[in-house]
Amino acid sequence: MLVICTGIPGVGKTTVMESMRALLEDRGTPCLIVNFGTIMFEVAVKEKIVSDRDRLRKLPMEIQRHIQRKAAEHIADLARGKMVILDTHCTIKTKQGFFPGLPRAVLDDLAPNALVLVEAPAEEIFQRRMGDPTRSRDDDSQENIQAHQMMNRAYSASYSAYSGCCVKIVENRQGQAEKAAHDFSAVMGV
Amino acid sequence: MLVICTGIPGVGKTTVMESMRALLEDRGTPCLIVNFGTIMFEVAVKEKIVSDRDRLRKLPMEIQRHIQRKAAEHIADLARGKMVILDTHCTIKTKQGFFPGLPRAVLDDLAPNALVLVEAPAEEIFQRRMGDPTRSRDDDSQENIQAHQMMNRAYSASYSAYSGCCVKIVENRQGQAEKAAHDFSAVMGV
Amino acid sequence: MLVICTGIPGVGKTTVMESMRALLEDRGTPCLIVNFGTIMFEVAVKEKIVSDRDRLRKLPMEIQRHIQRKAAEHIADLARGKMVILDTHCTIKTKQGFFPGLPRAVLDDLAPNALVLVEAPAEEIFQRRMGDPTRSRDDDSQENIQAHQMMNRAYSASYSAYSGCCVKIVENRQGQAEKAAHDFSAVMGV
Repeated sequence: MLVICTGIPGVGKTTVMESMRALLEDRGTPCLIVNFGTIMFEVAVKEKIVSDRDRLRKLPMEIQRHIQRKAAEHIADLARGKMVILDTHCTIKTKQGFFPGLPRAVLDDLAPNALVLVEAPAEEIFQRRMGDPTRSRDDDSQENIQAHQMMNRAYSASYSAYSGCCVKIVENRQGQAEKAAHDFSAVMGV
Repeated sequence: MLVICTGIPGVGKTTVMESMRALLEDRGTPCLIVNFGTIMFEVAVKEKIVSDRDRLRKLPMEIQRHIQRKAAEHIADLARGKMVILDTHCTIKTKQGFFPGLPRAVLDDLAPNALVLVEAPAEEIFQRRMGDPTRSRDDDSQENIQAHQMMNRAYSASYSAYSGCCVKIVENRQGQAEKAAHDFSAVMGV
Repeated sequence: MLVICTGIPGVGKTTVMESMRALLEDRGTPCLIVNFGTIMFEVAVKEKIVSDRDRLRKLPMEIQRHIQRKAAEHIADLARGKMVILDTHCTIKTKQGFFPGLPRAVLDDLAPNALVLVEAPAEEIFQRRMGDPTRSRDDDSQENIQAHQMMNRAYSASYSAYSGCCVKIVENRQGQAEKAAHDFSAVMGV
């Protein structure tokens, strides 16, 4: 079973996924959490395309797409007979605009069962971003953070209509990752 | 001509469709209202798959999809040369999340002319649900009701972009189903 | 490179595109602005289908779609090796509802790099529409104007998920078309 987990930077996605893993282990259902970017890098190293992760995103779009599809096929293989949570982006927000994190060809390869949107109030995301010294300050206002979350809902509807997967919205309030993980687990019917 | 009519539980969709039928009959344009779930059940009975409607939704997904497509083909046949209103769901909201009511293959088969979203203020829907003794209480707050309607708009945009059909939003205020039916009729160009 | 520029009536799209052209020329990157409707009319005249633009939209849907695809192919040709901004609609709002401005087949032919949504506060759009004597008064309230912009975001997410292009939202506040053009230029990576 393949569940895609997405959420914008600062939403607390990693914490929710770790709580989810603990919850599933408690219930005797181990799960594998994989990161799309990491799998892409592994594919690129294996195919001797790059040896340095920063170079990955500077490759020509055509080669990036090749790597992306190879990674998607590998993840779909992993998810046969196993519970896999795929950590990736619903959209990638850049100066150029929103890019789809799950374009058509990738969805075809992944054939996910479910797509989870981890969301949080824009104010909490804003505060977390402000307090993170490793993150370069961007100019995202609370209004832009909210707009990004709304665009992700629109993209997720499109991914769902195209692939047939379900979409689960999980709210992750400050300090309540366990509650979020519990809501998350409903998507797996466990 | 095929018009798909959707709306979340408690929005008053059945009342609007009945007002629509009366309005069209007054104008000398009879229409046929069919329910997707009913047609699916008829297909399943005819193919001797089930004889009990509750079992329909417990069938393996693969068999449900087969029945769904057969039903879609039958409805598309009905709509050749006749005005058909198809009563179905834009999304099905479950504990697992939102499932698309009109996935790609179904849209391909149906080839609808238009998709209508019957909407109402979240407060009115909430009140109608509270006052309905046959409905099992769910935990949908007014905020969740509003979010469901917004997700349906996003899904409908995706269905429209994919199939080329138009999307009409019809507001059904308490006690104004006739006005809603009048707005609805614009979608048919009558 | 092909950038599609959309925005609802009264948003100031033409002004933004002209500022964009001036900005790009200042930077030594000339661009070509083409209008989808105009190219469609040119195709229809060349193929001796119509000689009058008003007749174009009264043609049977099948013929309109043929012309639309021929126009899309022509625009894709223009954009090979040149910077082209395509002026068109994200959705066409009619009494029948929202029609997709970029249905699947058109997106396949255009293969755009980016889609820009020029937006403005509903109040400013409302005021501009009221003050425009050439525009027939429609009954769009500020609420409906806002809903139209939100639907366009949902459609653009769907176009992006389908075609892989990025989506850039550009705000055009009253008297600030140059700022909007500057934001717009980010989509081109220039």
